[in-house]
Amino acid sequence: MADKVINQISDVCIIGSGPAGLSASVYASRAGLKHVVYEKFPMSGGQIVNTGDVENYLGFSSVGGFDLAQKFHEHAVNAGGNFKTEAIKSIFKNNGVFKVTSEKGETEYFKTVIAATGAKSKTLGAKGEAEFTGKGVSYCAHCDGAFYRNKTAVVVGGGDTAVSDALYLSNLCKQVIVVHRRDEFRAVKSLVNKLEAKENVKIIRGFVLVEIKGDTKAESVILKSVKNNETQEFLTDGVFIAVGVSPVNELFKDIAETNEAGFLIANEDCKTSLEGLFVAGDLRAKPLKQIVTAVSDGANAIYSAEKYLREN
Amino acid sequence: MADKVINQISDVCIIGSGPAGLSASVYASRAGLKHVVYEKFPMSGGQIVNTGDVENYLGFSSVGGFDLAQKFHEHAVNAGGNFKTEAIKSIFKNNGVFKVTSEKGETEYFKTVIAATGAKSKTLGAKGEAEFTGKGVSYCAHCDGAFYRNKTAVVVGGGDTAVSDALYLSNLCKQVIVVHRRDEFRAVKSLVNKLEAKENVKIIRGFVLVEIKGDTKAESVILKSVKNNETQEFLTDGVFIAVGVSPVNELFKDIAETNEAGFLIANEDCKTSLEGLFVAGDLRAKPLKQIVTAVSDGANAIYSAEKYLREN
Repeated sequence: MADKVINQISDVCIIGSGPAGLSASVYASRAGLKHVVYEKFPMSGGQIVNTGDVENYLGFSSVGGFDLAQKFHEHAVNAGGNFKTEAIKSIFKNNGVFKVTSEKGETEYFKTVIAATGAKSKTLGAKGEAEFTGKGVSYCAHCDGAFYRNKTAVVVGGGDTAVSDALYLSNLCKQVIVVHRRDEFRAVKSLVNKLEAKENVKIIRGFVLVEIKGDTKAESVILKSVKNNETQEFLTDGVFIAVGVSPVNELFKDIAETNEAGFLIANEDCKTSLEGLFVAGDLRAKPLKQIVTAVSDGANAIYSAEKYLREN
Repeated sequence: MADKVINQISDVCIIGSGPAGLSASVYASRAGLKHVVYEKFPMSGGQIVNTGDVENYLGFSSVGGFDLAQKFHEHAVNAGGNFKTEAIKSIFKNNGVFKVTSEKGETEYFKTVIAATGAKSKTLGAKGEAEFTGKGVSYCAHCDGAFYRNKTAVVVGGGDTAVSDALYLSNLCKQVIVVHRRDEFRAVKSLVNKLEAKENVKIIRGFVLVEIKGDTKAESVILKSVKNNETQEFLTDGVFIAVGVSPVNELFKDIAETNEAGFLIANEDCKTSLEGLFVAGDLRAKPLKQIVTAVSDGANAIYSAEKYLREN
């Protein structure tokens, strides 16, 4: 090995500064574990930074996503967290030590790593989509559905998540319009049957959403037929895009077991298939991806890491 | 059946109003599920009501347990939660419907039940113990250990939790004094060996803690030999009592599977062995019992209940 002599091995390397990484930092500080939080961007919070209002994280009846991200960051800093704004290029485990190298070429060594790089919602690339994200456009029905009580919502997608989101919203909204580019849904038949039986659900097949229009927030959608150039416009209060979620797994997919979609496999103890590597937040394969389940993962991951450090 | 005709069956019955039950209420409200939260006492919050400062629930750098409980309760009320201050006497499931009867004799019917009655720390019954709880006396090292950084802490107990807590505290505190009434620890040998090897840990065997003394907070402990009447006094900043935790499981232990200690068995999806019954919070058998893991359970339990309601 041509590696330089390792001068210092810290306890925990946290990669990612969304709710999972920040909670892990608070728990690590409180457990007296020397750690670094690496964040790619100069702003902590992950996906919540671009979220409008958050009303389901217990203790905050209603708070802006950006504000909540700042509160989370402040908490981690107050608890003693050590942050570095650096993208990580590679992680290798050798002789029980993780070698973590940043894109700038700096290398540090750690006994454990918390993978908290999260996930990204797939976008449609429609006109107005980016502009109205958090202003009527959402990628999470279970997070934001309640804002559209007795209103109209458009759901885009044809898989289990889209159909399940549409059913969830149909219990809250006055009307739900489901837009799917194919004639057949990929979702399981039983869910599709239930959706079709809902009186307040309108299903539009063979159309794609090409534009979201509005003034300060989304007000209508333009749909275009995949067979001809026919377009239709529907007024709506919200647009829920459910065309899939991608794990941000580049650093980990070759060192730990993932499921078919690329999420790291771990139980609620957050232990991956690689000893000393723990996964917290949306990158973990788990039933419900929410702010609070990510924050909970951060606590569980450090609890597991602390036990691992004690035993190794 | 001599039962009266069932006029109304609500979606969800939440029993218990600690962090798990309150989070479940927020998620149920947001999902448009008709529900009732039953609380035994006129004050929500469960165990955190009697907690001093909370510094590990992300978003609140430091908050009193009582204040946090009020914020949690307000959030659940603002979201639309319906609370009843009534102790529940019995729960029966019949033909897919849960019959819930209060101690006053009132009966209501629900399609699902969330068991969120939590757990109780076992107490020593020592003089001063109740008085100084939250003022130097704690039942949770992972919650409160960080308040005793570079200070002295006494740990009482001899099982895995006590020894593990003492090891955790030994990384934070200047000195840890472990008091165990027997000569042998019940904890696994490997943990005990590690504890004995710690330079800043003093182990006192064959003594029980009989009194905690102090002015406004715990300042010293009186230990008494189990063999003779010899007493010793030690100055300390904190006292961690780790003599076990009891599940509050009376309503559920005969209708759902429990582990040996009486906690309801469920994965992170919170599904118990009885269809339609979900368990959230400290009553669930799980690795780490913390405020945030309870709040996360509340979200997961409602997510599972909502799917169950959709499919049944």
